[in-house]
Amino acid sequence: MAPAAPRSGEAIFASVEHVNSELFTLTYGAIVRQLLTDLEDVEEVNKQLDQMGYNIGIRLVDEFLAKSNVSKCVDFKETAEVIAKVGFKMFLGITASVTNWDAEGTTCSLILEDNPLVDFVELPDTCQDLYYCNIFSGIIRGALEMVSMKTEVTWVRDMLRGDDAFELKVKLLKQVSEEYPYKDDE
Amino acid sequence: MAPAAPRSGEAIFASVEHVNSELFTLTYGAIVRQLLTDLEDVEEVNKQLDQMGYNIGIRLVDEFLAKSNVSKCVDFKETAEVIAKVGFKMFLGITASVTNWDAEGTTCSLILEDNPLVDFVELPDTCQDLYYCNIFSGIIRGALEMVSMKTEVTWVRDMLRGDDAFELKVKLLKQVSEEYPYKDDE
Repeated sequence: MAPAAPRSGEAIFASVEHVNSELFTLTYGAIVRQLLTDLEDVEEVNKQLDQMGYNIGIRLVDEFLAKSNVSKCVDFKETAEVIAKVGFKMFLGITASVTNWDAEGTTCSLILEDNPLVDFVELPDTCQDLYYCNIFSGIIRGALEMVSMKTEVTWVRDMLRGDDAFELKVKLLKQVSEEYPYKDDE
Repeated sequence: MAPAAPRSGEAIFASVEHVNSELFTLTYGAIVRQLLTDLEDVEEVNKQLDQMGYNIGIRLVDEFLAKSNVSKCVDFKETAEVIAKVGFKMFLGITASVTNWDAEGTTCSLILEDNPLVDFVELPDTCQDLYYCNIFSGIIRGALEMVSMKTEVTWVRDMLRGDDAFELKVKLLKQVSEEYPYKDDE
């Protein structure tokens, strides 16, 4: 039997269970506020948000693979496109665009076209070094690690810091090739 | 012009922005885990989750009133029904039932018919006193306070603790009557 065709992010998003976006936004805001109070150090909060995202990402990838029918991506370029067009759509209902590829095809940027995390958010003066959406970088890093891609994910632009977009740089550090107990097409 | 009729929770839920329920569930799980690590005390985590919920509730009520066309409820009984049938539906896509009214009509139970927060969750032995979903009690308490109802919200049954349902007791402590600069129908 031929494998099922990959499903569009839109179709998957329509078929999964949802919660109200504003509830998610406010809940996320409450976390960040809580971490700022408990840890009293913006750098530490950045790290924790990234780590929380990582823990989410390594689990979310299962849902992604189960629902999307996406099979092994050919290369990092295809992977980035799938994250942007299927992943963001499937989980947040938004899409991202992929740009700024380097010559080697191992570094690119994801530009978010919308960002439900930051509705109603303004950073106070004391938090200008906060990467408020750092959970995203952690999620991407965690999810990619589960499909054998070790990456570094950093913010290049952040609208909460006055930039004109949200831009995440994703750099492939190492791709571990999986060894199957069998070989395809043999 | 006659005021617009209240909208059903289902209709509102369909019309608002959404995120994937699993992302919300995992994000919430990451918060709880983070709090357990940072605070090292289950009672303290219960308090913080409730407080986070309260902060969310006092803001979520605006979205609720704006989207639902629900006007002032006649009494606490009607309010409880609106929370169960419209509020839970609008934000989480689930409904609750209202039971166990006391004779005075000031205490009732909300029974959740589904609970997206606890998918994949099991409490380890060290956390048996955790009220994992305490954010709900805080949200309800916060939202009701913004419509002049001071309440106490506590868990009666919790499936993560082995009970057969999620049951929240909502007790009206004090109802502050609002004084308008004008009187209705005059």
